Amino acid sequence: MNIQDPTLSARTGSIDMAHGGGGRATAELIADLFQHHLTNPILDQGNDAALLPPVAGRLVMSTDGHVISPIFFPGGDIGSLAVHGTLNDVAMAGAEPLYLTVGFILEEGFPLADLEKIVISMARAAEAAGVPIVTGDTKVVEKGKGDGVFITTTGLGVVPDGVHVSVERAEPGQAILLSGSLGDHGVAILSKRENLEFETEIRSDSAALHTLVAGMISAAPGIAVLRDPTRGGLAATLNEIARTAKVGIHLEENAIPIKADVKAACELLGLDPLYVANEGKMVCLCEPGDADAVLAAMRAHPLGRDAALIGTVTEDDAHLVEMETEIGGVRVVDWLAGEQLPRIC
Amino acid sequence: MNIQDPTLSARTGSIDMAHGGGGRATAELIADLFQHHLTNPILDQGNDAALLPPVAGRLVMSTDGHVISPIFFPGGDIGSLAVHGTLNDVAMAGAEPLYLTVGFILEEGFPLADLEKIVISMARAAEAAGVPIVTGDTKVVEKGKGDGVFITTTGLGVVPDGVHVSVERAEPGQAILLSGSLGDHGVAILSKRENLEFETEIRSDSAALHTLVAGMISAAPGIAVLRDPTRGGLAATLNEIARTAKVGIHLEENAIPIKADVKAACELLGLDPLYVANEGKMVCLCEPGDADAVLAAMRAHPLGRDAALIGTVTEDDAHLVEMETEIGGVRVVDWLAGEQLPRIC
Repeated sequence: MNIQDPTLSARTGSIDMAHGGGGRATAELIADLFQHHLTNPILDQGNDAALLPPVAGRLVMSTDGHVISPIFFPGGDIGSLAVHGTLNDVAMAGAEPLYLTVGFILEEGFPLADLEKIVISMARAAEAAGVPIVTGDTKVVEKGKGDGVFITTTGLGVVPDGVHVSVERAEPGQAILLSGSLGDHGVAILSKRENLEFETEIRSDSAALHTLVAGMISAAPGIAVLRDPTRGGLAATLNEIARTAKVGIHLEENAIPIKADVKAACELLGLDPLYVANEGKMVCLCEPGDADAVLAAMRAHPLGRDAALIGTVTEDDAHLVEMETEIGGVRVVDWLAGEQLPRIC
Repeated sequence: MNIQDPTLSARTGSIDMAHGGGGRATAELIADLFQHHLTNPILDQGNDAALLPPVAGRLVMSTDGHVISPIFFPGGDIGSLAVHGTLNDVAMAGAEPLYLTVGFILEEGFPLADLEKIVISMARAAEAAGVPIVTGDTKVVEKGKGDGVFITTTGLGVVPDGVHVSVERAEPGQAILLSGSLGDHGVAILSKRENLEFETEIRSDSAALHTLVAGMISAAPGIAVLRDPTRGGLAATLNEIARTAKVGIHLEENAIPIKADVKAACELLGLDPLYVANEGKMVCLCEPGDADAVLAAMRAHPLGRDAALIGTVTEDDAHLVEMETEIGGVRVVDWLAGEQLPRIC
């Protein structure tokens, strides 16, 4: 993948409706910007569809739209986020991600220089992950009918033999592991949005988790459930698991890692870190006998250094998520009915 | 797939920001609307990623954003179009489409009743095509930051052994076949937009072409190139082929099928049908010795009844698309630099 500075003919201009018209302007945008930065043998085939070699094994597909605002933020941008987000959804099926596709919806007037920054960021994230972007599409809407750029990515992956990761496999008695501290992404976005400054800059945790997952699976191929607590945070993820698998969840507040500055920012902003989005963290449910091995594998990876055992799956006909608080009480961690942080991913 | 009328709790309301928040409102929207209408065993797994059985053979992936305006039009809507458009991109690789994914970007205030109509339309189109929608994603943006609904679909398909359809295989001497008449989709959209009425309603040709492709490939497995002339119309498609494969194109205007009412509407609207988008037509390049067999296979399919031999691939260092006009002259069919019809797909 070539991520050098280009000689982009249109790099100083902005998106106009012609870039979405399917004619010469569209072709030039694709060649000068997308193909230039994202180049790989499959993308360079130049067909509307990407032709891929055969893949042996069960496949996984996942798709995710990205509408985050602001599009540039501490720790990332909409481009790297769109790569990481979909890689992670594929990885949460226990799969090795193989290919990505990307669809851009651009607003008339969006600066080409910003678009180029985003495409370079996607190229870097894809290259670092070892997963090529194999085909794409660009549409343009009139000024006022979009918001700069929206990016939908889709990932294809393959599940190793013997691995069966699925939310339905959650069962009472399983250990609940968390790969690191909560709330970094959501707090970074909100701080940027509100122009808040803290002593140390809080950065998004946006990262690709598939190599961490691979390490965990080789430590314990029987892992039952993997989920990344993005929108709605850990609370939404655990409630989804509880509802789908018809189990209860018991958490220990003491055990949940949250960075001191994130905690302080949450207090200032009136946020509960359990509900704040993360983009580089995961929850893992496994048999209690596997917990030590999985935790060790997590802690051996740079993205899992702060991994912790945070609770257990319980039997509960009400499918509640309950948390033993720091002061010893028990609190129900319900879903939020409404929106806590709009456009966080 | 269940496409019956639902008892959708929220069917009379509209999209609010909470539907994109990842909490309870998002989960209810997914359960009551998306899962209800699109239900199939893979979608119903309830994971962020869809787990698919192994697929033997070369794979094809394609992605397409849909931002068409208006979202409901004669002959279809943004939902059926999003299914057909991506199925066709997969089919243009000579592949059998197997699975679709869908990403919605919804604007706050969008009526849930309209969203439901669109989802039902997607369900019907997917069911008719025999291709399930296996996973999806929903994001919501504030009022004024989107335009009702944008839909990005991604398709996965498998290429039969022995089939090698790719634009680089275009070679001088090959026959150029067109599966039917030009311009229906673009004229239908523009008529609706401009509130024009004609004696007979002009309807979009939006349709899934994969079974037509399968018939053509069994008639002549050596087919070189397939392309659907969508944005930018036949002119953009043939110029792309000429540029990519470094060939020239010779067309016979007489041979190009255009319906009388579409032709009349184009004259009225100041459009050249060669540049108008189609959503249920394809161009096929094959060896001249295969042309009769492929044409017969096309005409045997309801979507290829009006198929015609419209030209030949030539040697031309300038990679021009030239057309012998009805009155015997020769005209260069250049790319449009700008936008002819914005948001046509």
